[in-house]
Parts: sequence; structure tokens; C-alpha cells
Amino acid sequence: MFTRPLLVLLLLAFPLSTIAQSDELDAFVGDWVFRINSDPTPQRVALLVKEDSVRGRVYGTPFSGVLDTGMLTFDVGGYTWAGTLSENRLTGQLIDPDGDTFAWSADRYQPPAAPRTFVHEPTNYHRLLSSRAEPALRIFPGDTVRTTTVDAAGWSTGGYRERGNRVTEGGNPLTGPFYIEGTLPGDVLAVSLQRVRLNRNWAYSGDAVMSNVLDASYIRDREVEGNLVQWTLEDGFARLTEPTTALADYKVALTPFLGSIAVVPGDGVTPSSRDSGPYGGNMEYAEIREGATVYLPVSEEGAYLYLGDGHAVQGDGELTGDALETSMELLFTVDVQRYRFRSVPRVETPESIASVGIAGSLDLAIQEATSDMARWLESDYGLSSTETALVFGTAVEYDIPDVVRPWVSVAIKISKSVLAQINQ
Amino acid sequence: MFTRPLLVLLLLAFPLSTIAQSDELDAFVGDWVFRINSDPTPQRVALLVKEDSVRGRVYGTPFSGVLDTGMLTFDVGGYTWAGTLSENRLTGQLIDPDGDTFAWSADRYQPPAAPRTFVHEPTNYHRLLSSRAEPALRIFPGDTVRTTTVDAAGWSTGGYRERGNRVTEGGNPLTGPFYIEGTLPGDVLAVSLQRVRLNRNWAYSGDAVMSNVLDASYIRDREVEGNLVQWTLEDGFARLTEPTTALADYKVALTPFLGSIAVVPGDGVTPSSRDSGPYGGNMEYAEIREGATVYLPVSEEGAYLYLGDGHAVQGDGELTGDALETSMELLFTVDVQRYRFRSVPRVETPESIASVGIAGSLDLAIQEATSDMARWLESDYGLSSTETALVFGTAVEYDIPDVVRPWVSVAIKISKSVLAQINQ
Amino acid sequence: MFTRPLLVLLLLAFPLSTIAQSDELDAFVGDWVFRINSDPTPQRVALLVKEDSVRGRVYGTPFSGVLDTGMLTFDVGGYTWAGTLSENRLTGQLIDPDGDTFAWSADRYQPPAAPRTFVHEPTNYHRLLSSRAEPALRIFPGDTVRTTTVDAAGWSTGGYRERGNRVTEGGNPLTGPFYIEGTLPGDVLAVSLQRVRLNRNWAYSGDAVMSNVLDASYIRDREVEGNLVQWTLEDGFARLTEPTTALADYKVALTPFLGSIAVVPGDGVTPSSRDSGPYGGNMEYAEIREGATVYLPVSEEGAYLYLGDGHAVQGDGELTGDALETSMELLFTVDVQRYRFRSVPRVETPESIASVGIAGSLDLAIQEATSDMARWLESDYGLSSTETALVFGTAVEYDIPDVVRPWVSVAIKISKSVLAQINQ
Amino acid sequence: MFTRPLLVLLLLAFPLSTIAQSDELDAFVGDWVFRINSDPTPQRVALLVKEDSVRGRVYGTPFSGVLDTGMLTFDVGGYTWAGTLSENRLTGQLIDPDGDTFAWSADRYQPPAAPRTFVHEPTNYHRLLSSRAEPALRIFPGDTVRTTTVDAAGWSTGGYRERGNRVTEGGNPLTGPFYIEGTLPGDVLAVSLQRVRLNRNWAYSGDAVMSNVLDASYIRDREVEGNLVQWTLEDGFARLTEPTTALADYKVALTPFLGSIAVVPGDGVTPSSRDSGPYGGNMEYAEIREGATVYLPVSEEGAYLYLGDGHAVQGDGELTGDALETSMELLFTVDVQRYRFRSVPRVETPESIASVGIAGSLDLAIQEATSDMARWLESDYGLSSTETALVFGTAVEYDIPDVVRPWVSVAIKISKSVLAQINQ
Repeated sequence: MFTRPLLVLLLLAFPLSTIAQSDELDAFVGDWVFRINSDPTPQRVALLVKEDSVRGRVYGTPFSGVLDTGMLTFDVGGYTWAGTLSENRLTGQLIDPDGDTFAWSADRYQPPAAPRTFVHEPTNYHRLLSSRAEPALRIFPGDTVRTTTVDAAGWSTGGYRERGNRVTEGGNPLTGPFYIEGTLPGDVLAVSLQRVRLNRNWAYSGDAVMSNVLDASYIRDREVEGNLVQWTLEDGFARLTEPTTALADYKVALTPFLGSIAVVPGDGVTPSSRDSGPYGGNMEYAEIREGATVYLPVSEEGAYLYLGDGHAVQGDGELTGDALETSMELLFTVDVQRYRFRSVPRVETPESIASVGIAGSLDLAIQEATSDMARWLESDYGLSSTETALVFGTAVEYDIPDVVRPWVSVAIKISKSVLAQINQ
Repeated sequence: MFTRPLLVLLLLAFPLSTIAQSDELDAFVGDWVFRINSDPTPQRVALLVKEDSVRGRVYGTPFSGVLDTGMLTFDVGGYTWAGTLSENRLTGQLIDPDGDTFAWSADRYQPPAAPRTFVHEPTNYHRLLSSRAEPALRIFPGDTVRTTTVDAAGWSTGGYRERGNRVTEGGNPLTGPFYIEGTLPGDVLAVSLQRVRLNRNWAYSGDAVMSNVLDASYIRDREVEGNLVQWTLEDGFARLTEPTTALADYKVALTPFLGSIAVVPGDGVTPSSRDSGPYGGNMEYAEIREGATVYLPVSEEGAYLYLGDGHAVQGDGELTGDALETSMELLFTVDVQRYRFRSVPRVETPESIASVGIAGSLDLAIQEATSDMARWLESDYGLSSTETALVFGTAVEYDIPDVVRPWVSVAIKISKSVLAQINQ
Repeated sequence: MFTRPLLVLLLLAFPLSTIAQSDELDAFVGDWVFRINSDPTPQRVALLVKEDSVRGRVYGTPFSGVLDTGMLTFDVGGYTWAGTLSENRLTGQLIDPDGDTFAWSADRYQPPAAPRTFVHEPTNYHRLLSSRAEPALRIFPGDTVRTTTVDAAGWSTGGYRERGNRVTEGGNPLTGPFYIEGTLPGDVLAVSLQRVRLNRNWAYSGDAVMSNVLDASYIRDREVEGNLVQWTLEDGFARLTEPTTALADYKVALTPFLGSIAVVPGDGVTPSSRDSGPYGGNMEYAEIREGATVYLPVSEEGAYLYLGDGHAVQGDGELTGDALETSMELLFTVDVQRYRFRSVPRVETPESIASVGIAGSLDLAIQEATSDMARWLESDYGLSSTETALVFGTAVEYDIPDVVRPWVSVAIKISKSVLAQINQ
Repeated sequence: MFTRPLLVLLLLAFPLSTIAQSDELDAFVGDWVFRINSDPTPQRVALLVKEDSVRGRVYGTPFSGVLDTGMLTFDVGGYTWAGTLSENRLTGQLIDPDGDTFAWSADRYQPPAAPRTFVHEPTNYHRLLSSRAEPALRIFPGDTVRTTTVDAAGWSTGGYRERGNRVTEGGNPLTGPFYIEGTLPGDVLAVSLQRVRLNRNWAYSGDAVMSNVLDASYIRDREVEGNLVQWTLEDGFARLTEPTTALADYKVALTPFLGSIAVVPGDGVTPSSRDSGPYGGNMEYAEIREGATVYLPVSEEGAYLYLGDGHAVQGDGELTGDALETSMELLFTVDVQRYRFRSVPRVETPESIASVGIAGSLDLAIQEATSDMARWLESDYGLSSTETALVFGTAVEYDIPDVVRPWVSVAIKISKSVLAQINQ
């Protein structure tokens, strides 16, 4: 069987009859989260006061309601809703077209007066992306968090693989989860990475190429053991701590980024923090660096943001399975784009925008990435599909961030200098 | 059934008996191409004189021979060869281990005293990569050719789609073939592109994205017609000749390159010039530009080099099927690397080296590219497979040059600034 | 970063010194599950008495221990274990090669005297494969369970989509989980399906072909809505309840099977019951029918067996996303194969054996299936890799059970009449 | 750049003016092949006489013409054609909408009065699928040919690998080509295989599994040499001639079929006979056996039919690269289905129909096969896309005939007992 289609209320305007006092109406004004008891998916409804009625908007479609002796009533697509207000909470009954009745309730969304900044010093880490984990913090859109991450093996700051330095078991332990108040399935969580910095002077990496990018005769002809290797991070470069003769002078410029950034995938599904998917995860994309904003499709209320797996440097594909794994210091701000219903992570940097297709093969991943970028140009830059093709034909770049099975990725990227030429 | 394995002569040294005069021996010195009548694949044998015997070398393995009353005799791996010399040609008999006899002959490789430069003004073009086509020129390694190419639709220099300007039918017509004397199956042809220049001020492109990089719902929701669009090439930029409002100011910097560079695939196989494979072909790789050297595995004697399909600009993947197609002016020099037995094209620019995997899916193409680059680092830079992994994990970049079916490509690239740090 | 390698104790024999009384020793005899406090993965150890010592076996490798004043001591691969026995429980200390100390304990595996049969009438169902769910039953290898499953939309027995008939929300609700005592990660759970029977006379199916098996022009040219269609199951055939004219006489023989059979994937990962993987899941393989035994790799202690998604009939691939979905009556027996360390589900019927590769593309799935079958022939039929190839070249069949993304499958099957010809 | 679209004449009826004598008109009646000198693709035009005019039909669309003093004139889609008749040949001028003039000619299609039977005893064989090869026979639709094929290594009838028995070099040598008069690009060639019989008592096969269906650890752990093995074909079974102990009693029932059946791919493209594609080729599909009809899309005038690569037995996928390769005796009849414009081979047996998708990955091949079968059910069985889905969801079977790179295949098959239930 296949995925249950998202329940979308079809909302139709209807004539208004009874009139209430405006100050009574004003108590309804705001963003509400509606819950039908029999349905696990909450929905956001904006209630407004216009003249003498309560008017609403759900998924962009307006409707209007009647207030009569304290009870608000409205019809939407053949469903009749009736409810009463008590201290920022609406409760009532819903009658469906067959005459069946369901209980519902609604809570008002009440963000803080001004954005806040939190410091989170993690004491436990997570190897699963779960909405059952206790949130590290509950924050609102606009809030900022300063925190740290350990490396993929659970080592924190301090000397190379020092015993006391290992603060948690390996397996890509992540910091979080951060519960983002007011986010609902269908939203997009925007995470702006203000600081993505190294906080120690070493990293480790694998030293064998993943077999899934090698051909059979190469695999057959090499003895591969696969050990961990230490790198020293200094003066803006990574160098092998104990280099071979051939690589005695080998150094690569540090380009620190977050290997993993994720929300939970929805419906209680709980993947490993080593996995990736439309919800983000272990994306291994070097563009997820200081200055970037990552857009993740939200599938559970609260989003449940996890971050970690800092990389000091990484070639495309993360070909050794472990990049230059290290601990990090982070500062990020969250925001929410409501009801975008996307299925692909996006990354924006000062230089470019990118859609990241994540799938079971590169050939599928490129389809997801390219289609999302086409939709992005159409929705945000006002291009037709023909104009999109002309920009694609001249200015896209593909990246292959991650070839570590089972989920691999292809990113499509367009420079902002190109986008700046589009007349909107 | 599957591919016939390449016939490799196993060569063993053997004791020497009869002694001839050195000046008689000297007539044998040189590179020879041996042909057994029953076998279509010629082999290169270097004959030398050392002291008082003819010594040879095939695929790097030495053997030695006896000259007796004008007849040269030698044994290799149980096969006995005997032959006489007449005007740069050896002819004789070969006796196999079963006692069967085959005729053979050998011709001396005689390059010109100094490299030459040719001007080739094409009068016909090729939509097939065939070793049956009459060579445009027969040149030697070291020689240089100045020539031109028409665009993929057969239009040459002159105004946009002017009638007289179309010099040949469309379908990716290429210039060539250039027969490279002395190249044999197993060699690699190196083509150094000294000039890859635009020679007119317009290009055309497609205006629809290839469906194989789009998802089903995107495909279902758009009307796609797919027309050709004209671009004006001026002042270093491409601009739409008749832009839409949104793209009125849209311009992209010109980065002219050759979409197609190919040898023939071997055994008489004759692909379309629109196809690609281990032999190169319609590779659509933007790194194949002025200053680049392209290395193509040779599969037929003479290589049969074809060039064309100039692109003024192209995004990754050639997503519209037609890039900014235009005619070009070329200057290139050919060279040969003997008996490398490779199966993947390589591209070297002043900035980087790249292996281009070409296969039926991106997941296979990335294996071919990555394995070849691993072999490249091992053979030319002296790295172990572990050291190769460390460089891969930190410094490779993947490109996706071409997603036009049926053959797609992935390139793996390493910067020369990285390679310069390797101690050899 | 990549998967933590399975901790494998390297076990070495060592000389024996102190001698204890045999009746004291006898208390140790049996299968034990060892747990090191710092490691989440338990390990099975068989303790035996041989002459005057406690001897053990782990992963097939023997070791031996000393009993001195109630404390059992043994060395394995540089680790020294010491513990005391109290009521079927061993507790003690482990000293690693660095001298660090860890607590450990071990519990004796105590199966019932004889296999039992249970009847489980489910009251709740599961749309997640979770080891955090409360087990429906805790059973031992050898036990048998009689139970029922609802269809993928949550409808039980009774009339077509009757209100009261829907006993749970849709989304592939499964019966279970059944906790299998004494199963550990690395084992294989064998589920013998003695009854897989229809218990109602209707099914529903989808009526649109999944887009991932269609080409772009087919997708572009058809309007596809995708509705549910009812089928009547009678006299051994499925017929459309309200057929179109063309399909008025269309009927297909009923071949009832279980669409979903799964254990949990390990490490707390919790997939949707609609997904599939090495742990089984929504496999949609028609060979999983009455008379079949399904072998699933166990990744968490207790295995956590889930079953459901009955199909009355299904073509290969489950091309409409929903097969003929129906409720079912089941009778099955479980057994355990210890420490096989496999990563692919297997299915055995009276007619054939099959390995089911499940991956993100058919090209990967076929590799997993074929490699597993090769290992199967080598380990259970004693064939060399050459003999395996000869059987493969003449007698394998491939099935494509499931093309519903994101995980697709390829099965490789060999008839038992072929296997019967192999001399073992 | 991409494929030139097929030139399709848009034909519009137009009023008729001048009237000619009917007996003069009668000379025009028949099927003609029109050729415009500047266009390599001929087109079939049916000319009829209706009342007092010449009427035509091209791709199913009618037009009508005027005969005046021996010159036939007609307009089609803005093009004006004028020509005169001389001995079954029309020659004339074509004026395009821009006023440009092109020469054209047309030849009458003249099949023999009754189908004929030919015996072709091949003296040479082909390792390329080329339209430049001299046809073995020129036959007409309806004609029958009796002939033989050698095995993939070039061995004919006689003892195992006897020297004299090898009649041609290996590399999958095929019998043919048979030029089918009157077939044009866009047609489908139907080849009915009346006899596909063994004509000797031995076969050879490979003994190693192709690496592309194996995983990396399997590849890494086995030494694979890959030799040829002899099989004895007797009493309806294949047995190893020199079996190992384990396979001493191993036998498989003979199911002889043609591994290769092909036309040329079009535009002069010349693949190896070891390759496959939309044109058929080395398909390795066991359904291509005695009693089957194979439908191949024609891409060059004359089709150029090649046959060979007999297999005595083969498991799915041809996993050893060489199946049980043997020589064969064939009897087949050809027919033509005009202007079907298909791109996938089809196979019909007394039991089933099948579409064979051939592509660079199984994931693409399954799309080609499934889409073609959907079109087949729609066009020949009158099903809507919904009805097609219902049949697909209940009654399709997938085969994987061939996994030998670079082109792999997936076949989709429906039983005729299922199709017989469809009301048409």
C-alpha cells in the first residue's frame, strides 16, 4: 500500500448572518492550531476579524464564521464547525457531510514578544532522529541558540582520542533536539548558521574509499583494511598528523561545515542519525557552513531539529565514509516558512542557492534536486518553465555531496550573481 | 556471450646462439607494427640491437633473436617467429605451440623528422564515428592541425540560420576523422587544444529541460514544446537575442568548449556522433576547452579522431539537450601514450586533472570515473591505495557533465594545486 | 561517518590451572546471554563442562575457564572475565587489555519444556516497526501463533468498507510485535507460515500505475487520478465488483500472501510499516504465502516480529501501489538460526528457495540478492564459487516483487528440483 | 544536441479540379516509396484511384491529386508535389512553402505473387550489425527462410571445439543480414520462429558470475578466473561433460532459444553483435524460442535482420556472460507491420506477450518495458489507462533476461489466458 494523502480541507466561503460585537470578536484574532481528535495531523488556521465577523484562512483559502451567544460556527467544504472560546483555547464539535460528529480543539500560537538567545550545553547526544526524545530546548521562530557538537565518534574538545574526551558513544551523535514551537507538518524550517567553527585542533578520517564508487577489478585488486587516521588542524589547514612520505607536505584548507542537520521524518518514523532523506540528516554537504541557511521540510509538529557531525574538510561524496570528523561550536537562528509542502532540503549561502536531492540512487537524486530547483525558480523568481530551462541550460552546477549508501545525494546549485540578473 | 579477451603475448627471454654483423642488425632497429594474418589486432614491437643480437620488447617485456643468413628468428612464449627483412618490411612465418603455422608481417613506424602543422578546411562532416570514413588528414604524433567545426545543426559561420550558412545536415556533424599514424589499440591519444574559439556571434539552444532529470509530477504538470532559441554572443557574454521580460538582462560569461571529441570505439563499431562512451564522443564536458589536453583510449589502428559540437556556454548536465550550440575555430596537437590500456577518457587543464566515467547510469559512471582516478594517482603520482583515499576524502570534486540519455557521465576532478603537494 | 563495526570478540584458548568439583561446574552449563554494561549489544555464549573445567564457545570459537572458590575466571583475546553465579545469573568484572574495568552480567536462556501454541486476537495495530512497542506476545523459538491481520487501510472482516469494520487507521497497520525470547542481533528468525488464508470476500486495490515504472511521454499523455477499486473474492478468483465493459469477464486466481513481514532494523531505528529493507518489511513478495518459511536477519534482542498487509492477488512489482488488499487469518511457527550474520531476507517454499535484495535501485537490489544466493549455495549446498556460477548460469530465476519507492526489490530464486541434483 | 525529429508530412485534403481517364489513373495504384533527394528517410505513400482522381494516404492521412497531360500534381501541408510516371517509377519536383524546389522520386512496392521459401547456407558471419553488409538474401514480407547459426565463439556442428569446426572468428558471429524489401523506418518487423533447434550435442558456457550482480565483499573474497566449460546435450538435458563431484548428477532440461535477433539501429549506426538496444540485438531472452514471434522496430530501409547466438539453456540474466552456447538450425517467416513507430522489442509466444525494455540500468529498462506494455494493452486490447493498471496490478510478470553490461534488460510479460478474458 502507499502513502496516505495529506488531508487537505477544501474551504469555501459562505454567506454570513448573525453579527457580534467587535471586541468579543477580537478575542479570536490570531494563529490557531486546530486538532481533530481522530486525526493525528494538526492544522494551522489564521482567524481574523473583518468588520463584524470572524474570518479565517487555511492553506491560503479564506472562510468566514458566525458568533452567536459565545459560540463560533462556520462551514468549510461541507463540514460544520462549532466551538467556544476559553482562555486561548477553542473546543467544540465538527459535523462531517455524513452527519458524523468529531471533537476538536484549537490552541492559540503565542510567540514571545522578542526573539531570544539561548545557550545550550549538551549533556546527552542522539544517534536516532526521534520525536520521542526529550527536547534540549523549546524555542520559537526567531530565537537563536549557541551550542556545541561532538564528532561522529563521540569525542569532544581535548587531545586526540583522549579517554576523558569521549563524552558519548560513536555512531554520529547529534546535539538537540530543538523543538520549534508553532511549526507544523507542511512547514519549512529555516536554520541560519551564524557560526560553524572548529573548537579543537584535530580531526580523524577514514583511509579507504567506499566500495560503491569503485569498479569490480579495482575492488578485487586491492587489500583494503580501513583504519582511522588523525589530522592536525592548524593555521587554516588540515595536515596528516603522521604523514606518509608521499603526503609529508600534503595540506588542505579548512572549510568547516556541518555534516548532519535534520528534523524528524514524520509519522513517528525514527531513522539513524547516520542516514539521510528528505528531512535532511547526514547530508555531508560542504555548503552547509557558516553563513548558510538550511531549509528543511517539517513533518512533525515542533520539527525536532538535530545538528552535528562537524567536518573540518571533505572532498565531494565523502568518499572515505568518514570526512575529517571534528567537534564544533555553533550559533544558529531558526525561522519558519508556513505551509510550503516541499520534499527536498534547500541550502542558501551568500553565494548561491541549492536543492539537495536525496534518494537510493544518483539517477533518482538528480531528479529530485532538479525538479525542486525548477519549482524554486518558478515560485520565487517568477520564471516560466521555458525560462527556467534557459537558466538551467546555461548556469546550473551539480554537486555530489554524499555517496555513502543507502541514501546518496545530488545537489543542484545556482549562483546568486546569476539570479540577480532575473527581473522579477 | 562476452568480450573476447585481448590477445596478450607472453614473452620469455631465451638464450642466444648465432651472431651476426652489427650493421646488418642495425637495419632492424626501430618500432615495428606486427600483424598476424589471422588476427585483426596489430601489435607494436620495439626491436633494438644490443651487442650482437636483435633484442625486442613488447608490452614492456624483453626478448632476443638470432640472425642467420638474413633470417631473423626468435621464440616468445612457445611461439617461434621467423622472418626476413626487405625495405622496412618484415615478412615471415609463425609456428604456434600446436605446430600450426601462420603468416605474419611487420612494418616499421617512420615518423617525420619534425612535427608539422596542417590546415584542414572541412568540406564534409560526419554524423557517425567510423573507421571506414576517408580520413580528412593522416598525421603523426606531434603534428598540429588548424581547422573549424560547424554547430550541431550543421550551421557554419554567418548570420543566424541563414540558408547558405548551413553546410551540412544536422545531427551533430563533426570535423575529421584525423588518422594518427602509428597509434594502436591499447594506446591513449592525447589531444592538446591550443585554440577553442568562437568564430561567429550567435548560438542556438533548446528551451526545455530533459525529462530524465525531472520527477513525474513536474513532468505531468507542465506543457513542454521544446523549441530552439537564439543567443547573441558579444563582449564575452551570451544574451538571449529576443529575451522575455524576466530574462531581459540575463547574460552569462562565454566559456567556449568542445562538446564532442572522439576516437572510434573499436572492432568496427560505429556509433552516432550524438552518443558517447569510453572512446569519448559527445561528452559535453566544459573542461574540454582551450588549454586542455584530452586523453582518449585508442581501439582501432589510426585512432580516427573526430571533433566538433562547439558550445559557447553550458550549465552542468546539458539539461536542455542543446547547449549554446555554435561553430568554432580549432588548433590542436596530437600525441600518443603507448599501451596504457585504459577505458576512461581523461581531461587535463592547467588547473586540474579529471577522469570522465561514461555509462548507462550515474551510479555506474561514478564508479568508472572514481576507479580511473584512483589508478591515475597510483600510477602517475606514486600513491598507495590508502594515500589515494586520503586525497580523495579531502580534495576531489565531482562534475556531472552530461545527463542526456542513453549515456550519462560523471567526472572526478582534482586540482593541480593539490597534486603539487604530493612528493613523488 | 559510517557504520560502527560489529564488536567481535577474538577468542583464544589458554592453559587451565585450578580444578573444581564437577557438580559445582554443572550449574554453569547452558546458553547464556552476556551483557557488558557499556555496550548495548548482548552476546550469546555457550558454557559447557568438560572434565573438570568450564569451557565456552562464542561465535563457534572455544575457550576454557577456571573455577576457584565460587568465582569463574577466563581469558579471551586479552580480556579477563571474572564472575560469580547466583540463581541463573552471572555477574562480574571484565578487564580489558589497557587495564580498564567494566561490569558485566549474563542470564541463562531457559526455553519452555515443549513448544506451545498461542492465539492472539489483536486489539491494536502498528504503523511503525519499533522495539519500543509493547509486545503482543513473548514467545520462544518453536512456539506457534494463530492470529489475524487487517488490510492496509485498517479494515477487518465484514462488508466492503463498512464503518464498524475499520478497526484502525490506515497506513499499513500490522499485527504484533511478537517478541522472540533468546534471539540476538546476528541471528536469523525463521517464520514458517502454516496458514495464510483469506477471511473475507472482498479486497480493494489502486487503479493507477506507479509513475516510477513509466516513461516521461507516457506520464505526460495520461490523466491519472488514482482511486480505490473493489474486488470480489469468490470461488477461488478475484473479480472487479463493478467491472468496466472491457473487464466484465476479467478474473484472476487467488494467490493469497503476506505483503509485510518484518523484524525491527536495529539500534532503535523505527521505520514505517510501509517501508522495507534488510529486515524485511513491506516486501510485497508473492512467495511469502502459505507453506513458506521466511528468514529475517535479527538486529535487536527479541527480534520484534510484525506481520500484515494481506494480498489476495498481486502482479509482479505491486504496480498499482495497492495490490488486492485484504484481511487475513494466520498460523505461524517461529524458529531461530543462531549467529548467521546475514543482511538479506530469504524465502523458502516447498518449490524453491529465494534471496530478496532490497535497495534504493533495482541495480543495487539485484547485487544484494545474487550475492546472498551465491553465499547460500556455498554454505548450505557446499558448492564452490565456480559450481555456483554453473548453477546460476542455467537455473536461476529473477522476480521483481516491489517497485514502490523508495525501496525496491529483486528476488533470485532456484527451484528445489534443481537443488535436489546437487551432491552434498 | 539531440535527435532530429522524424520528418512527418502534415497532409491536408484539397479540392480537385482536372479529371483524367481512369485507366491512366490505374497505373498509379499501389504502394510507393517516396524519396526526397535532400532527406535520407524514405516515406511510404499509398496511391489509390477513387472515381476520377488519384488519392493518397500517408501515415493514415488522405490527400488527393490531379492528373493533367501525364503530370500528377498534389498539395500536402503547403508543399506542392508534381511528377510523371515511367515504368513503375515516379519522378518530379517538390516546392516547399518558401518556394524552394527539391527533386523527388518514388518506386512502386512490388511483392511476389506468393510467399516463397529460401534455404540460406551461410558462408560468412557478422560481428557487427551493419546496413553496409551485403545482404545474405533479399526477401519480402511473407517469405520463409531455412538457415543455420554458429555459436558465439564461431564453432559450428561437429565435435567439441574441433579445429575444423570453427567456421568463423568468435565475438558472437551472426547469420544474415536478411534484407526485407519494402520495410521502412517506423515499421515493425515480425519474425516468426518456426524452428529453433539444436543441431549438435554439445555447448560451452562460462563458469564465473558477472561482477555487476555481485556486492563488493563477495567480489573481494573470491578468486575468479573465468574459464569455458563443456556441456553435453542429450536426451533433452544438458549435463556437464566433466562434472565436479557436487554436480555429478546435475542436469537441466534443454530449452533452446536464440540469444541474438536484431535489425540495424538506424542512421548508419553500427553496433557490435554483442550489444543490444531498442533494435533487439544480443537480447538473451529465453522466450525467443521455437513458436515465438519477435517484433523489432525498423530504423533503416530493408531492416537488415541478423540472427544467431543459440543457447541450449540459460538461467535469467545470463549470469555467466556465456549461456550454454551452441549452434542451431532455424526456420523463420518475416512479416511487416507498417508505421507503428515503436521503440521497444516485443515477443509473443503461444502462451504470452512481452515487452523488452533495454537500457543502461534495470531502473530505466523497467520503465521502457512497462510503458510499452501499457501502450500495447491500450492500442491492441482497447483498454483505458485505468483498466491497464488493473490488469498490471494483478497479472504482470517481470523477467530479467540480461544483466551483461553495458545494456541490461527487463521484460514485462502477460499470459494469453489473462488477455483472453478482456472483452474487445
